[in-house]
Amino acid sequence: MRIDNLQYANWSEKVFRQMREGSVDAVHVTIAYHENFRETVLNVEQWNRWFEQYPDLIIKGLWASDIDRAKAEGKTAIFFGFQNPSPIEDDIGLVEIVHTLGARFMQLTYNNQSLLATGCYEAEDTGITRMGRQVIKEMNRVGLVVDMSHSADRSTIEAADISERPIAITHANPHDWHPALRNKRDDVIRAVTEAGGMLGFSLYPHHLKGGADCTLNDFCAAVARTAERYGTDKIGIGSDLCQDQPDSVVEWMRVGRWSKEIDHGEGSAAAPGFPPQPDWFRDNRDFGNIEDGLRATGMNAEEVAGIMGGNWYRFYADNFSPKP
Amino acid sequence: MRIDNLQYANWSEKVFRQMREGSVDAVHVTIAYHENFRETVLNVEQWNRWFEQYPDLIIKGLWASDIDRAKAEGKTAIFFGFQNPSPIEDDIGLVEIVHTLGARFMQLTYNNQSLLATGCYEAEDTGITRMGRQVIKEMNRVGLVVDMSHSADRSTIEAADISERPIAITHANPHDWHPALRNKRDDVIRAVTEAGGMLGFSLYPHHLKGGADCTLNDFCAAVARTAERYGTDKIGIGSDLCQDQPDSVVEWMRVGRWSKEIDHGEGSAAAPGFPPQPDWFRDNRDFGNIEDGLRATGMNAEEVAGIMGGNWYRFYADNFSPKP
Repeated sequence: MRIDNLQYANWSEKVFRQMREGSVDAVHVTIAYHENFRETVLNVEQWNRWFEQYPDLIIKGLWASDIDRAKAEGKTAIFFGFQNPSPIEDDIGLVEIVHTLGARFMQLTYNNQSLLATGCYEAEDTGITRMGRQVIKEMNRVGLVVDMSHSADRSTIEAADISERPIAITHANPHDWHPALRNKRDDVIRAVTEAGGMLGFSLYPHHLKGGADCTLNDFCAAVARTAERYGTDKIGIGSDLCQDQPDSVVEWMRVGRWSKEIDHGEGSAAAPGFPPQPDWFRDNRDFGNIEDGLRATGMNAEEVAGIMGGNWYRFYADNFSPKP
Repeated sequence: MRIDNLQYANWSEKVFRQMREGSVDAVHVTIAYHENFRETVLNVEQWNRWFEQYPDLIIKGLWASDIDRAKAEGKTAIFFGFQNPSPIEDDIGLVEIVHTLGARFMQLTYNNQSLLATGCYEAEDTGITRMGRQVIKEMNRVGLVVDMSHSADRSTIEAADISERPIAITHANPHDWHPALRNKRDDVIRAVTEAGGMLGFSLYPHHLKGGADCTLNDFCAAVARTAERYGTDKIGIGSDLCQDQPDSVVEWMRVGRWSKEIDHGEGSAAAPGFPPQPDWFRDNRDFGNIEDGLRATGMNAEEVAGIMGGNWYRFYADNFSPKP
């Protein structure tokens, strides 16, 4: 079973066919960066059209069991998530509404301070806000997973502590392998995984040691070391693949509507666009390379199967349903 | 089994308890008159809170099987509907979205011309519009039932013809029993029922012969005659009970935001508010009176059971799921 727990491609029949070529059984797709509620619903509407247009390639994923169905039918189950809490605006009642519409992951922050927590680019990290505590409780109740990929350290550790259900870092790598601002320090990963949460390894070049030149061996060795340190059942893939997106989209991701000045995020004025992918992970067809690379590290078949999808499957099965 | 296919009470624990006292297993509740999409979502949020607050009294109804569950657990299943297409605004993509959020009936018009069809108070009835045809097709696809209770005759007959699935008049009575503007002529009821659709008998006094003074015997005799004429399996109850509502609400129902002048609808300047209910149907506790009255007409037990709920149950089972 192969599950990629974060993609934001410029979706098309081509990309959906590549998911099938790569035997990807489920993908958690970002459907909102800075969109408000109504705009997020428009994005759900767009996905509904794709589900109608490509019924032989993709199905809507709501529960782990949808992955079994997708696998049996040779399709990919698509799970929705948000990289920012903007879709719930300032209304806690929207948490249940977006869950009903299919949302399964929501980041509490995207780089900046939000109504709920502090993002990883702010100078001061004040942790989880008053509304943040209420929203985490409501997310726990309905089965919407707290994602802290773009959050600051204290906020992430507090979220892991406050949340009564496991949380996730859907797409980031260990800071001690590659000290990017977005990669996560040991105490952060420890707080998340010790509370039952997961870390999804990112293939976004800015998160890789050496960027696009990172080797498959180096990447897989980092995965293996991290698995050994925090638990082989706590690690998965969250590739952050942004296939076929124009550079205007990375600008939207970084700047949204919050600034009139450009913010280059993990890029720079000299390299403002999407970076090129490593040649061993160009798109959905290349998950086999990662699986081969993980086997070559000496991990056993069960451990590799967990990291390639089994661990996310179990996490989905445990965390998407309303609290009994 | 007892199903009331239209209520718009001022919801409270008191009303939910009365549903249980009246052994009402399911109620189709109006959650939007003139609300736009976002306002309708706020109303869903309010219902979500009630489901959370009163789990021993009510559950959210999505499918006919939820009525079985409600009945087994001694609760009432609540199904959502709109009296106007305002919740989908001018966006056909919202049809599937509102169905996902639980909507199961949508009127194409409420008294006035809409984007989709003509209401029963307009001088000219131009039938189903261009957008109306597209929306009916989409409603058929996802399992959102076309309700023509407040629509004009030609529009209703055309909707019954265009729709590939049965449609409903959820709450109205035969015009030849009581010639109110909102009651339905023979050819309209015939078009709807011959296409497999249903008529829900209203207990709203303006729809009753003699108004609040209508007798139980007279009401039940009208139901029995109508059942004999169009089929005992095509008739149900849609009480239009607006319990505990202040008169400001009937003004909202009639005027919404479409007029600065007051429109009295079925009322008048002399009697602008909600009319009093007949003494044999004050609220949800009185469904037993109707059941007794129907038996007294000489209908057999099976026919009475169908009208009290079995017919709506079968209609729900056939029409709420997406088209295969």
